[in-house]
Amino acid sequence: MTETLHDPTTRGFASDNYSGVHPEILEAIAAANGGHQISYGEDVYTERLQEVFAQHFGAGVQAFPVFNGTGANVNALQSMLPRWGAVVCASTAHINTDENAAPERIGGIKLLTVDTPDGKLTPELIAQQAWGWGDEHRAQPLAVSITQSTELGTLYSVDEIAAIAEYTHIHGMKLHMDGARLSNAAAALDQDFRAFTRDAGVDMLSFGGTKNGLMFGEAIVVLEPAASDGLIYLRKMNMQLASKMRFISAQLIALLEGDLWHRNASQANAMAARLRSSIEAGVADGSIRGVSFSQATEANGVFAILPDGVADRLRSSFRFYDWDAAKNEVRWMCGFDTTEADIDAFVAAIARETTA
Amino acid sequence: MTETLHDPTTRGFASDNYSGVHPEILEAIAAANGGHQISYGEDVYTERLQEVFAQHFGAGVQAFPVFNGTGANVNALQSMLPRWGAVVCASTAHINTDENAAPERIGGIKLLTVDTPDGKLTPELIAQQAWGWGDEHRAQPLAVSITQSTELGTLYSVDEIAAIAEYTHIHGMKLHMDGARLSNAAAALDQDFRAFTRDAGVDMLSFGGTKNGLMFGEAIVVLEPAASDGLIYLRKMNMQLASKMRFISAQLIALLEGDLWHRNASQANAMAARLRSSIEAGVADGSIRGVSFSQATEANGVFAILPDGVADRLRSSFRFYDWDAAKNEVRWMCGFDTTEADIDAFVAAIARETTA
Amino acid sequence: MTETLHDPTTRGFASDNYSGVHPEILEAIAAANGGHQISYGEDVYTERLQEVFAQHFGAGVQAFPVFNGTGANVNALQSMLPRWGAVVCASTAHINTDENAAPERIGGIKLLTVDTPDGKLTPELIAQQAWGWGDEHRAQPLAVSITQSTELGTLYSVDEIAAIAEYTHIHGMKLHMDGARLSNAAAALDQDFRAFTRDAGVDMLSFGGTKNGLMFGEAIVVLEPAASDGLIYLRKMNMQLASKMRFISAQLIALLEGDLWHRNASQANAMAARLRSSIEAGVADGSIRGVSFSQATEANGVFAILPDGVADRLRSSFRFYDWDAAKNEVRWMCGFDTTEADIDAFVAAIARETTA
Amino acid sequence: MTETLHDPTTRGFASDNYSGVHPEILEAIAAANGGHQISYGEDVYTERLQEVFAQHFGAGVQAFPVFNGTGANVNALQSMLPRWGAVVCASTAHINTDENAAPERIGGIKLLTVDTPDGKLTPELIAQQAWGWGDEHRAQPLAVSITQSTELGTLYSVDEIAAIAEYTHIHGMKLHMDGARLSNAAAALDQDFRAFTRDAGVDMLSFGGTKNGLMFGEAIVVLEPAASDGLIYLRKMNMQLASKMRFISAQLIALLEGDLWHRNASQANAMAARLRSSIEAGVADGSIRGVSFSQATEANGVFAILPDGVADRLRSSFRFYDWDAAKNEVRWMCGFDTTEADIDAFVAAIARETTA
Repeated sequence: MTETLHDPTTRGFASDNYSGVHPEILEAIAAANGGHQISYGEDVYTERLQEVFAQHFGAGVQAFPVFNGTGANVNALQSMLPRWGAVVCASTAHINTDENAAPERIGGIKLLTVDTPDGKLTPELIAQQAWGWGDEHRAQPLAVSITQSTELGTLYSVDEIAAIAEYTHIHGMKLHMDGARLSNAAAALDQDFRAFTRDAGVDMLSFGGTKNGLMFGEAIVVLEPAASDGLIYLRKMNMQLASKMRFISAQLIALLEGDLWHRNASQANAMAARLRSSIEAGVADGSIRGVSFSQATEANGVFAILPDGVADRLRSSFRFYDWDAAKNEVRWMCGFDTTEADIDAFVAAIARETTA
Repeated sequence: MTETLHDPTTRGFASDNYSGVHPEILEAIAAANGGHQISYGEDVYTERLQEVFAQHFGAGVQAFPVFNGTGANVNALQSMLPRWGAVVCASTAHINTDENAAPERIGGIKLLTVDTPDGKLTPELIAQQAWGWGDEHRAQPLAVSITQSTELGTLYSVDEIAAIAEYTHIHGMKLHMDGARLSNAAAALDQDFRAFTRDAGVDMLSFGGTKNGLMFGEAIVVLEPAASDGLIYLRKMNMQLASKMRFISAQLIALLEGDLWHRNASQANAMAARLRSSIEAGVADGSIRGVSFSQATEANGVFAILPDGVADRLRSSFRFYDWDAAKNEVRWMCGFDTTEADIDAFVAAIARETTA
Repeated sequence: MTETLHDPTTRGFASDNYSGVHPEILEAIAAANGGHQISYGEDVYTERLQEVFAQHFGAGVQAFPVFNGTGANVNALQSMLPRWGAVVCASTAHINTDENAAPERIGGIKLLTVDTPDGKLTPELIAQQAWGWGDEHRAQPLAVSITQSTELGTLYSVDEIAAIAEYTHIHGMKLHMDGARLSNAAAALDQDFRAFTRDAGVDMLSFGGTKNGLMFGEAIVVLEPAASDGLIYLRKMNMQLASKMRFISAQLIALLEGDLWHRNASQANAMAARLRSSIEAGVADGSIRGVSFSQATEANGVFAILPDGVADRLRSSFRFYDWDAAKNEVRWMCGFDTTEADIDAFVAAIARETTA
Repeated sequence: MTETLHDPTTRGFASDNYSGVHPEILEAIAAANGGHQISYGEDVYTERLQEVFAQHFGAGVQAFPVFNGTGANVNALQSMLPRWGAVVCASTAHINTDENAAPERIGGIKLLTVDTPDGKLTPELIAQQAWGWGDEHRAQPLAVSITQSTELGTLYSVDEIAAIAEYTHIHGMKLHMDGARLSNAAAALDQDFRAFTRDAGVDMLSFGGTKNGLMFGEAIVVLEPAASDGLIYLRKMNMQLASKMRFISAQLIALLEGDLWHRNASQANAMAARLRSSIEAGVADGSIRGVSFSQATEANGVFAILPDGVADRLRSSFRFYDWDAAKNEVRWMCGFDTTEADIDAFVAAIARETTA
């Protein structure tokens, strides 16, 4: 009944959602258990969660816990847009590439995509798709979505976000941020959440919990109340309303009330940095050969180009994904549970396999 | 961080999802924690879960864990139907009354509803809506959905289900069962799951875990593989694919591998029976006045008619919902955690309030 | 190339859309031909059409030509509702029974249906479904849709509509009228269009042209501008935006600028009345046996109950549809092109077949 | 009532749907008028239409008349795909740029777009998006859509289409052709329709009538019956089922039974060629200055780059659209009703304005 079927000591670099749950999160779940609580969000944990988010983002924000990141993104965007709306996003955005068209199919939203070198939009890039308002033949670009940290492991600076927000608002659009890895971004920027979201002009946020140590659970955070309508209904009809919501809220409280979010994110970021610097050192001293990097390492992901055949040999011991197999480009993700020993063992393997 | 914000000793009769999580479920979650597991369902717990469902339903069934009951229902029905399909269901069905039109809006499904006295369809009732095949103006009735146990606390017998299945299949339709309270039904019928689902001709099942003691998690169970298509894709695009799925699967394993499902369901059923029989005894001996019942009590719900004003007075101590306020009809639900003491205190209050 | 493949002298009683096009409409189409006109509605005919509708409905209304009645209904309702909206309607409403769930599937709208004896809603009947605002589990009833004249050949009086409008608005809902046969209603009521639509409190109207002599074309008429949003975009994305719109608008102008709408509707209504009174006379004098009527004959449809076998024998010469085959109930529709001779021949056949 | 409100002698170069209706089409409509015909497609004209399409495309094809091109495309693609399907298309495809996301919002289809220099896909370009089958996170690329002639006035050769079809089918996908200007393509290629559609491996076709002289009406043509499912239902629920369908079918018969389709298309193509060659001659002899062409002129559209300010000055007399205003790129479309005199007057104006 309570059997452990897997090896709890094995970790790889495939994804930050291969990890389990941080022990403090499990404790918080246990503490929220027992007795009866009103279902569907009228419980005291969800009430307290509002205060916790207000501490981070300021008074007046509203948090809607949901099950997963796709649910957060689709509900958030749908609540920001009329039925004829479209969203400008990077072509590498998770909403465009990894949600099996949930934004389009469930949200009824057109994505107007822009190619970017590093997963980051700019006002100039947004301008490629931000036009045609009033033309009924064109899906109306009424929102922009950016990801922080990006799907390519890169980061927007506070100023970059503010510039995007300014451009977005000047053109009558709203700004959404996919923050599946928001804590990693905050830790990497050494900023509080508010500085690069609400204060920078972001209207709506998908706040990620799962990748930062939760069992499940994200929150849609309405930073600008005028930017969103009907979330209470959308969340239900979009099948993202948890009956025993106290257990999502309790997790998010545990993550955010103290510094767990920061500890977890910092660890993941630090391990990515260690991985990169160790490889760079290896390349410099010749112990590693032929490895280069395709993106800056600014959060918890490392994008590398490997010599032919190395990826598959490494995968016999460490799980990770190809990013662009045609270019021998791979993605290595670090999680809150990645250790220095994990990194060192992996770097040793890379050294071995690239010099064999 | 791990603070308990609520009174874990208070319970009411509002809903079986006001309950928390059974301790054995929490243990199973902890046992599944640690290390890395492939996300999105390729973990060993989800693999084992297939065996567990096969033990209950026979070889060849497939289980798709999802987050919640609405997600299970909409995904299951959508996978059974072409885009032009409709589903015949009772007008009291959860899919019709409590899912904010998710079947229609997300699933693109028309519900063809039938009024029933007790929440139960029959071949004769289904026939009211099962017609018009080939007429392009009519949403095509290609599936029937029944709820076991029903939203009115009643039960289908094995024979009743078999008769519906036969009628359904003869007319080229498929049969779905909403089993949000399937364990309560199995315990009440004293049957294994298979007897009144797969063996009775049910094609697709929404298996409920949350109301039976899980934190979250249900499973879509494909009993007849030819009845369902594309669930792997639908679950993702419908935002019901959990990244750390091991924690849904581990819960369901803990529920179903031993007899936890039966213990939890039996307790809830027994408490509902105790509530009803205690009130009936009170009415018989005059200690309770003016209370009658609007539905048979066959699982874990009791539907009663109260004298004017009694419901609101009772609610000062025990939370529960009106069912049809115009008729003074209320619904009392018992959960896996309802105790004899809970029932006895509630019956005492009913006696007090109806004889005041 | 210009071959006539059918017998243009044969008519039946199956539907008012079995008819062709009134000759004056064809003339109007020809007059609008030649040269270039801006497509998609910026042509001078569509501009003039606005004035024509203003003559009938008063200043400030807006007309959006569309292809067909389902298109008019779905676009109108969708423009009236947020994504979580529901519409209260009679269970016999065309939107519920004859549009293959387009309101649900395309509009994303839940229909909350009410059984009626005669196809007509009342405040009391609407109240059966008009509740639950603010409850996120229930599709939110935010509009009411009535059909004038109804699918059962009956009529709402001006007062009845006003009472519904008052109830609807008091409860924060909007009122839509499906006017596929609005001209028949106006002629039967001997009222101008405005009296029983805008002045009675109707917010949005599907104005029917096809059944009243057009080749194709209906108009969504926004009677209360605050009741509708985004129709210009919805019409396009819902595939109801005609490129050569001048040819819809020219037809509607020809119908409405003079009295063609009234002549056509009056003829159809008169023929239905003649059919009914002739049969009633026949029953009275014994020349017709066993025929009764299931609905009042108030517009251009007659609903009758026939003796066993009569319907099929009649259909060897006159095409028409069963309404409820189990009850031997049939529907006979008269069109703008139905003649007195058509009626008399049909009545003679009824006499023959019911006394054979 | 039958007033002509516009100047029927004025024509421009804005769009081939600014034109009116060819007189032979009006005659065919008149010939189909009168009497009763079964509505919704069971009329004799729609029956005959099947034979007409079989003459052009071979036995076994099925034609489904619809109202407009967006309707044809969305219904065709939806009938080809499961709910999780995606379509690879050029980023300039009408379905991507001009249908206000109807494919996504109504069809539930993801478009996987590819940039092209000339509006034409190739196997190599398709390969950029044709991958990821079986990965539930990715919308599944199960169809390819090409436009013939393209939105940029270019043409696919028979061999190019056959190569795309081969690639498409080898990868388990289906091939759709948007033939809004199919007649222009056939005339330009000097091929019968079948040679570059069915025989080249196209599975489903949107056959365009409106731009080639019809009042309204297109046909979805099922070339490969196994490639499409449920069109009869989809067309209805997608609001594209005409009640008086005989008037679409009669138009298509008149277009296709003789050579009207070819006369109309050839005229439009010839006028585009005349426009281009006249300008090229003018540039050669110095009477026109600074005009170049951004695309080959292979059908009825001419894409040109004008000197600054010229476009707006020309538009004081001739209506046409910018294509890419930033590049001074304009689009000039010729219709079936464009005359040599129209071209000569326009060329004279271009000469005047570019040498002023």
